[in-house]
Amino acid sequence: MAEKITPRSEDYSQWYIDIVVQAQLADYSPVKGCMVIRPRGYALWEAMQRQIDIMFKETGHSNAYFPLLIPESFIHKEAEHVEGFSPELAVVTHAGGEELEEPLVIRPTSETIIWSMYKKWIQSYRDLPLLINQWANVLRWEKRTRLFLRTTEFLWQEGHTAHETKEEAVDETLKMLDVYARFAEEYMAVPVLKGRKTESEKFAGAVDTYSIEAMMQDRKALQAGTSHFLGQNFAKAFDVTYQTKEGKLDHVWATSWGMSTRLIGALIMTHSDDRGLIVPPRLAPTEAVIIPIFKNKNKEEVVGYASRLYDEMKGSFRIEFDADDANSPGWKFAEWEMRGVPVRIEIGPRDMENGKVMLVRRDTGEKESVAIGEAASRVKELLEDIQQALFRKAIELREKHTYRIEDYSEFRTLYEQDGGFADTFWCGSAECEAEIKEETKATIRVLPFEQGEIDGKKCVHCGKPAKYRAVFAKAY
Amino acid sequence: MAEKITPRSEDYSQWYIDIVVQAQLADYSPVKGCMVIRPRGYALWEAMQRQIDIMFKETGHSNAYFPLLIPESFIHKEAEHVEGFSPELAVVTHAGGEELEEPLVIRPTSETIIWSMYKKWIQSYRDLPLLINQWANVLRWEKRTRLFLRTTEFLWQEGHTAHETKEEAVDETLKMLDVYARFAEEYMAVPVLKGRKTESEKFAGAVDTYSIEAMMQDRKALQAGTSHFLGQNFAKAFDVTYQTKEGKLDHVWATSWGMSTRLIGALIMTHSDDRGLIVPPRLAPTEAVIIPIFKNKNKEEVVGYASRLYDEMKGSFRIEFDADDANSPGWKFAEWEMRGVPVRIEIGPRDMENGKVMLVRRDTGEKESVAIGEAASRVKELLEDIQQALFRKAIELREKHTYRIEDYSEFRTLYEQDGGFADTFWCGSAECEAEIKEETKATIRVLPFEQGEIDGKKCVHCGKPAKYRAVFAKAY
Repeated sequence: MAEKITPRSEDYSQWYIDIVVQAQLADYSPVKGCMVIRPRGYALWEAMQRQIDIMFKETGHSNAYFPLLIPESFIHKEAEHVEGFSPELAVVTHAGGEELEEPLVIRPTSETIIWSMYKKWIQSYRDLPLLINQWANVLRWEKRTRLFLRTTEFLWQEGHTAHETKEEAVDETLKMLDVYARFAEEYMAVPVLKGRKTESEKFAGAVDTYSIEAMMQDRKALQAGTSHFLGQNFAKAFDVTYQTKEGKLDHVWATSWGMSTRLIGALIMTHSDDRGLIVPPRLAPTEAVIIPIFKNKNKEEVVGYASRLYDEMKGSFRIEFDADDANSPGWKFAEWEMRGVPVRIEIGPRDMENGKVMLVRRDTGEKESVAIGEAASRVKELLEDIQQALFRKAIELREKHTYRIEDYSEFRTLYEQDGGFADTFWCGSAECEAEIKEETKATIRVLPFEQGEIDGKKCVHCGKPAKYRAVFAKAY
Repeated sequence: MAEKITPRSEDYSQWYIDIVVQAQLADYSPVKGCMVIRPRGYALWEAMQRQIDIMFKETGHSNAYFPLLIPESFIHKEAEHVEGFSPELAVVTHAGGEELEEPLVIRPTSETIIWSMYKKWIQSYRDLPLLINQWANVLRWEKRTRLFLRTTEFLWQEGHTAHETKEEAVDETLKMLDVYARFAEEYMAVPVLKGRKTESEKFAGAVDTYSIEAMMQDRKALQAGTSHFLGQNFAKAFDVTYQTKEGKLDHVWATSWGMSTRLIGALIMTHSDDRGLIVPPRLAPTEAVIIPIFKNKNKEEVVGYASRLYDEMKGSFRIEFDADDANSPGWKFAEWEMRGVPVRIEIGPRDMENGKVMLVRRDTGEKESVAIGEAASRVKELLEDIQQALFRKAIELREKHTYRIEDYSEFRTLYEQDGGFADTFWCGSAECEAEIKEETKATIRVLPFEQGEIDGKKCVHCGKPAKYRAVFAKAY
């Protein structure tokens, strides 16, 4: 731990970058806007992938892989899609030493190339539903980037499904949103708000976009996963029809849904503190670290005693043993705190004499001395406690900074000062939405699924009758 | 199974393509030379990734991710590297609506971008060894492509390691070659020959390239994995030095090693037959399929009886249950054979009456009737038998078609007729090697690690004293 982490209170953005860089999660690359995901950051991504991939398979999806490069003309086949993505495309004009007849774009998302294949694969209702997911890199030429949160290239998964009926496609869209929400809450310990996006915030080419939104510690929102009902837009653009059970021909119905390495940013920003990263135990590449505390004269005994615990625990925990004598115990404590390992097990000569070990929680710093024979079972409990405590703490933060506001001057004051989620009402007009954004930088994160009672409510901005309950926030 | 597979004897190339397409492993995409890996093909890749990733981690490597795009100037920093890869590059010249100041190439391999980062990360011997692997897509603009075997874009892993000493780097190079060989033989059931590549066949930028080579059923060789000792070439090109334990400054030593989705082609070509794909059990996404055979009148009982076996087995086997009544049992048998599932479990009314089930091996077609209570344990044995039998059969093929040849007219005749591995001697001259290739299309696949007795041997082509035992073949 060479450098100090900037405290959140001093500079929140710098705090975040300090953690990413000093915990060696990611680094800047020589290519503008592209990051390098370092082994400790990638290990988090692997843990996330592993879990969510299980959830995709449990819901009947298979993985596949489609080409990185897409003929430029494909992007133009769906009108809204091209409008949304054209400004962000990277274009291959030359290859194999020659100029290409048609430029190829690097996928910003894969609807077009995938639907060009679905045309080949789908003929009849027997071919449906088609439930495919892809793990891939995508590229969107961004002007302002930030490690994990917004990078030109990022890793993600994109699900693309095809269905017989509108109803089935809508069900799939919502089911996958639920998978994301469950993953965020149960594994990342990040509470999320679920709802529908407004017209101006939806995916380019979707009929409806749904998202999960989380509150970061600076009270900004972060969109943590989106699920799109695409209607028949891409089926029509790529002429994908199927023979129905009744022998008629119809266009198929579609969904797509994605989540990305951006979630690593959400995880960091939700849980970490001024000492560094905090990783929820279920996703922690290392759940616990054993650090023997010794001097030269008692090194052998203490390390021997500690290593027996390591041997006992390593079969059932993701655990590390740090007996390196190049660094002091204090340095190591700080280093493993920085890396976010949930539980530290300290073992010194006095612990050894008393048959004890000291357990230290990363989230609260609380220490407890336990008999060495009970260490494993107590660590197991602590990991579960920490997982729950991180989730509760994040919920508390969100509740504390979610304001039921019906008055626009109050709304403006909120975003001039502390920020947070404004849980309010909206008339449904795009103009009102745009003016609010212009005046406060807050946008509608979602129209929550629970709309509650709208009758008699007024739009927070124009005062006309409200159509929707809407949650606003400044967002990443 | 709509179409018939072309028999190997009729058209080997078409046989291969028929299997890939009809077993739905991959498909042609609208982008020249790029394939789509369909769910059944991708499931094979996932099984392979899972196992080899475990082996990488057991040998101390961590995964990371580096950018897809590389500044063009980076490729030019290592003289041989640029010469080897320039003709195959795809170049991004425009992005975000503007022309780029410096073109970016899509990675054909990542030595240059990775070593530009290693310069940042490596200062001292304490930072070494650095043992990183990346799972990624890469792109090489190929003129002639073939599904899995040679595609413009492919998926692979690339290991990139940095070491204090030459010896340590050479050890790593050979250790990873061993990992590949072990994976190929123990999991893919593909026997491989290990050895060093000649100067003309080595990786552009390597000091030495080692490879594993397998014989396909048409007796051509397929390079199934390579491991490169890079010396200090990339460290010098990117000025990566470290402070030694003695306080001096030295360039670090490097290796890189890779294997790709090409291995799926090797697996198909090694084991499959005229009825379709054969997958070695250890990598089979589905190890066994249960097919109840019923008529309308006894459907309920037979399916019920069969599904009890499915329920019993599904916890410990990757098993499918095909009770679909849209297709006949015969159609299903052919379909599951085509897909390469190692064991088929047929259960008809007579089996039910006798408390039996019929087990059918995919590799030999052998059938055996066993008591239903013994089905699970017998299937377990069969899977292991099939794994070993496939390996033995592949070894037999290779032994049968490996010829100890010392006479060039015999050598020429071999490659005019049947082909195979010519195990012979070579003087070490690049001219001889080039002339042999020109005259016979056979190339030196490896200089095997076991060189045996060279003294007194003569080069198969020029008759001068031999320097090496060399194994030649026509290759994919």
